[in-house]
This record gives sequence, structure tokens and C-alpha cells, in this order.
Amino acid sequence: MRERAAKEEKTEYDSIGIVETKYCTFAHPPEQMVLESGEKLGPITLAYETYGKLNAGKSNAVLILHALSGDAHVAGRHGPNDHKPGWWDFMVGPGRPFDTDRYFIICSNVIGGCKGSLGPSSINPETGKPYGLDFPVVTIGDWVEAQRQLIDHLGIHKLLNVVGGSVGGMQAIEWTLRFPDRVKTATLLATAARLSAQGIAFNEVSRRAIMSDPKWHGGNYYQESDHPDAGLSLARMIAHITYLSEESLHQKFGRKLQDREKYGYNFSTEFQVESYLHYQGDAFIKRFDANSYLYITKAIDYYDITRGGQISLDLAFKPAKAKYLVLSFSSDWLYPSRDSKEIVRALKRNNLEVTYCEINTNYGHDSFLVRNPVMEEMIVNFLAKNLEE
Amino acid sequence: MRERAAKEEKTEYDSIGIVETKYCTFAHPPEQMVLESGEKLGPITLAYETYGKLNAGKSNAVLILHALSGDAHVAGRHGPNDHKPGWWDFMVGPGRPFDTDRYFIICSNVIGGCKGSLGPSSINPETGKPYGLDFPVVTIGDWVEAQRQLIDHLGIHKLLNVVGGSVGGMQAIEWTLRFPDRVKTATLLATAARLSAQGIAFNEVSRRAIMSDPKWHGGNYYQESDHPDAGLSLARMIAHITYLSEESLHQKFGRKLQDREKYGYNFSTEFQVESYLHYQGDAFIKRFDANSYLYITKAIDYYDITRGGQISLDLAFKPAKAKYLVLSFSSDWLYPSRDSKEIVRALKRNNLEVTYCEINTNYGHDSFLVRNPVMEEMIVNFLAKNLEE
Repeated sequence: MRERAAKEEKTEYDSIGIVETKYCTFAHPPEQMVLESGEKLGPITLAYETYGKLNAGKSNAVLILHALSGDAHVAGRHGPNDHKPGWWDFMVGPGRPFDTDRYFIICSNVIGGCKGSLGPSSINPETGKPYGLDFPVVTIGDWVEAQRQLIDHLGIHKLLNVVGGSVGGMQAIEWTLRFPDRVKTATLLATAARLSAQGIAFNEVSRRAIMSDPKWHGGNYYQESDHPDAGLSLARMIAHITYLSEESLHQKFGRKLQDREKYGYNFSTEFQVESYLHYQGDAFIKRFDANSYLYITKAIDYYDITRGGQISLDLAFKPAKAKYLVLSFSSDWLYPSRDSKEIVRALKRNNLEVTYCEINTNYGHDSFLVRNPVMEEMIVNFLAKNLEE
Repeated sequence: MRERAAKEEKTEYDSIGIVETKYCTFAHPPEQMVLESGEKLGPITLAYETYGKLNAGKSNAVLILHALSGDAHVAGRHGPNDHKPGWWDFMVGPGRPFDTDRYFIICSNVIGGCKGSLGPSSINPETGKPYGLDFPVVTIGDWVEAQRQLIDHLGIHKLLNVVGGSVGGMQAIEWTLRFPDRVKTATLLATAARLSAQGIAFNEVSRRAIMSDPKWHGGNYYQESDHPDAGLSLARMIAHITYLSEESLHQKFGRKLQDREKYGYNFSTEFQVESYLHYQGDAFIKRFDANSYLYITKAIDYYDITRGGQISLDLAFKPAKAKYLVLSFSSDWLYPSRDSKEIVRALKRNNLEVTYCEINTNYGHDSFLVRNPVMEEMIVNFLAKNLEE
């Protein structure tokens, strides 16, 4: 760790520097992608970013999979005046856990998203208008199928590592089941082999918040002057509560009032925690599309490697060949450690190599997005060991 | 317990029978009630019900305090064709824990509510129209002040017991602090001396669901043909998730689909848990007023016997003289056992008599609304012991 600390000092204000989003288009008609639903989709564009260099043996590629509101922009900045680095900047760069001096890092935006990849806000070539709800429902399997096309395009046969938190972890699981010969290792953070009933419930109320907003217009709001901002903001506020632990909300805000000494005896925003949620909701509508929120949460709800209990978790993991690092976080109640433990047990019963750790944190489900020495060290060691082997 | 079981058998289909809601009006101008906010309110009508008989010594009166969506109708039916008994029917009646052969039971609807007591849907005598948001913000202290008027009206000086779950428990606490000489014992179920930051957060998103509904019209929807049903329904769906434990949702619904074998690949209701939430939301709008939801959640958020941390919990309980029975439920994550334990510790440090039990249940915050032999037996014994003393 001392070595890392020294390296970090050098790079803390340095990072990966200026990066660029690239695009890859495939599945041109008549070779469209057949989705899990049976519908066809294409051409498909994926927005992606890469950092570091692919080595001669093409054995150092790491695919990072983003969570619900993430995108391809993992690290660095898009220009000299871009003051907000990518969403996992502390994890990716020279000397960082995903060390760009050693690894070739790739991340692409999921289909159905709104950050450059094909999604409901894209133009439907058949109508010349945004898809809206004519966009087909896509699954995590479809996302991974599209990512495989990107990996082919980059000329990589076998990924050293697939890694993601939350729904990113679900994609990592899916990679190891769908393409077992193309993944050496997988890192699953704060994830599950299928979402709980409570998780589905929260996703459904978030979707209803959007679909109840009259400005949603059945999904055809792109040409309107107003978008379903109130609904999307509310959806984000609901979800945000589930990303944090009760303890962290208590420590951060408690019952403190915002800019006032006493109750106002009205319905304005008074408590700091209310103010914080409103800020999160307002910030989100500036960067996210309401329909994409529907499509992505639906993909999460649908994901279930046991196919609705038709097969056991053990049988579901039978195709897998990867080595796994599974990390859960003690204060995560949306994807609790229990979900990770059932994955670990199933992997072990399939005689797969797996390292598991429940990391003590206060940050809830969002813990994987916060610096943590245990998480970082375990990822560093897991990658290094498997690159050398 | 054997004796109770035998009694129950006799009364299971019998209950308390037909009951009637009564009304009590006070605080006529110019003697209006001065609220905690400083505003004046009156005349105030409370809807209430009573069961059993007040004894000659007036020493057997129990005041039940209802939770957010409850009302004065605790037990029995309103007529021969009324098939839905009161909200705590299994607890109140001959031979039931609140045995109407022994105790005189009272319950009134809170002010700000919509079940017969004065609230935002009532006619404002100054305008001849429903109050809407002109109704003043009321607090749990105001509720209890109004209940005291009712108890005076009934000619009772000292209550044998005040009892409530959730916000009902907060009212019970408030009774013991505001009128220490008028309460012999208090039973606090699944409650807290102040709501957590997470609890405030959930209340706020529920309020925003209502206030974002264009049909809310700033609270003046009573004369409109449409009410903010979508918003109120969504608020209820959000809240309902917090009333149940993750485990109970898993056991009850898991990932089972509703009336279908496979995914529909669209945004209709597919999972049983979604269908259940929609049912809850739809049922709620038929029986509740959106503005009352705002006023009651605000009262809950405001409640804090430490006055925003200005005084310690120990000091806050200093005026209390009652004997307490405190029950929390292991699966309740909205009002977790921790909140009850801090009450118990503060009571003990004030040398007050207190019995505490964390009851093992799967039903989450709603546990106090579900039959439970431990809860029932503890309440039976606590009441009996204190009636005799």
C-alpha cells in the first residue's frame, strides 16, 4: 500500500488527462441483432471510451460495466475546461487500481441508455423520429451481446477482467455465463444474480413517477417544449434513498434544518435531507433521459440467471469458467451481502475459484463509488495476480 | 394463554358488533385552540369511537392512538352490511387484548386527517370553502391537545393507558410528557422519539409525489372533477414498501409473475409485487385525502422531543411519570429497534418503570397490525397488572 500511496501522490491531480468518447456501429440491416424478446434492432451504435494500451498479447483488457445512471465516461476529462472527471476516476488511471500503465480499460454505454449509445431518444431510422416507447425492451443479455460486438471490433479475444457494481455486476455475471471462453476473471461489486422483490418494488414506483407525469406523453415528449422532469426527478429521489444507508443519512444530515433555525410550519423544503434529495433530483434531469430510466430499470428487474426459478443457482453458474472476486458492503440494503453470498456459494459448488469479502462501510449501495482501501487493494491484487498467471 | 384461546374461540366471529362514530366539537371562537405554530384553529371537531364501559371509578379508560392512515374506527362494524371491521379489530373486543368487558376504549381521528375530524378537506368557516392548504400545519402536540379536550368531555381525569404504533406511539409519548398526571401507563409500539433522516426522506418523496401531480392544484382540488389520485397512489406505494420487510416481500411475492408465464417485454405490470403495490395505491385513493397525507406526514417529520437536539433525550423524558411498555419488531427498518432502545434507556435513566421487548417478526413496520401472541400477551398482562394496582 505504501507504494500505491506514493504513486497516487504523483497522480492525484494528474489522472488520465483528456479522453475522448468513441463510437462503434454494427448490426446494420439486414444483419440486425435479435434481442432476447425476439425483436430485431439495428443498426446499433455504442458509445465507448478506452484508457491505456492493449499489450501485444492482447491479454491486458479490462471491461468496466456501468450501473443504472453511469455511462462510458469512467475516467479523465473531456476537455481542458471540463471540471468533472468520469464517474470512477479514482479507480482508473496511472497508478490507480485499474492502472492504465498496465491495463487496457474499456467501458461502453448500454443500449437503451442516453449517453451516446442507441436508446429511446435516438432517431428511429424507420420513422425519422425519436423511438420513444417504440424502442424495444432490451435486457442485460442484449447489453452484453452488444458489448461483445465492441470487443470483437477492438480485436480482443479474451478479456482479462470484467468488472462492475450493482447492475454493472449483473453484466459481469452475464459475460461469464454467455461467453465463458472470453473472460478470464470477473469482479462483482454490490450485486446480485437477480433483484429482490423489494428492489423490483422500488424500480416500479420510480417508473410510475415518470409515467404518471402528464409531460411524459406516453414516452413521446422529445419534440415537446417540456419534458417529464418532475417525474424523473422524483424517480431519482426515491432511488437515491435506497443507494444510501440509514446510518449515512443520519450522520450526514440527521434532523438538521437547512438555512433556518425553526420550523416554518408549511410545506417548503426544511430539513437538510430534503434539500439534498431535491438537489439530486434536479441535477439528474439535466443529464438523464426519462425513457432511458424506464428501459434500464426494466432490464434490471428482468435479470434472473435462474430464469424465474426454473433452474437452480448452481446450475445457472455451470457454464462459467472465470475466476471471481466478489465484494459486498455491510451497509448496502438494496443489494445486501446475502445476495453476494448466495453467488459465492453457487460458484464454490461449481468448483470455481472465488474470493469473497464483505467490506465494512457506511455508504450503503453506493459504497463501490466511494474510495475504500480494502476494495482498492483487493482489486489491485486480483488483477495483478491474474495478469501474471 | 390457554384461557385466552378458549375465550377467543367464542368471540372470533362475534367481536364487538355494530359500533358508531361520534363527534365532539370544542374550541369555538373566540376560544380557539392556539397551535404550536402560533396559529389559531377552531371550532375543532373530533370524530371518535368508544367501546366497553367506563367503570364507576373511571379508572379503566384506554386511549388508542392511530397511525398515519388510521382513523377512529378501531374495532367492530358500522352496520350489518359492513364487511370490513375496524383497523385493530383483533386487538379490541370481548376477550381480546383490549378487553371491552374490562376496559373502556377510546380512539379519535387526528386533526388534519380526513376521517371525520377537522382537516384540510373540511369547510373553512371564514370562506365557506374547503380549507385546502389554508389549513394550518398541525403537530403531534396539537393532536394530543385536542385529544385531551375529548377526554375532558368524556369526564375522565386519568387514562389507564395510552397506546399506539408508529406515529400512534409518538402520540402516546407526547401524552406522557404533556399531561404526566393524566396517564397511568403508556404502550409504545414500533415507534421513535423522533423520525430518522431516512424516514423524513421517504415522507418527503411521498409528499412530492402528491404535490407534483398537476391535479393537486396547490391543494385546491376539492371542487375539481379530478383529484390528485395518481400522486396520492404513488405516495402510498412508496410508503407501503417501507412498511414491509424485504424478507416478507420475498416470502410473499419473490420474483413471481402475475397472471403470466413469461416476460411481456413492455412496461405493463408484470411482477406480483408490482401488482400488489398498485392494488394498495388504488385502494388508498378511495379512502384518503391527498392534503391530509401532506399534513400528517409533516406532523410526523416535525415530532422531536429533543427539540432538534437542544435538550437530551433524558431531559426530554424528565416530566414523565407513566409506566411504559415498549415493543419493537425485529424486521421493522422504518422505526428500527434502535429507536425504541434509546427511548428505553432514557426512561430508565429517569428511574421510570419500563418493560421492553424486541419481538421477532417478519412483517416489518406493519408488525403491530398483525396478530402476534407475544405482543398480545404482553399487552394483556401490562394492562391487567396496572388496572389492579
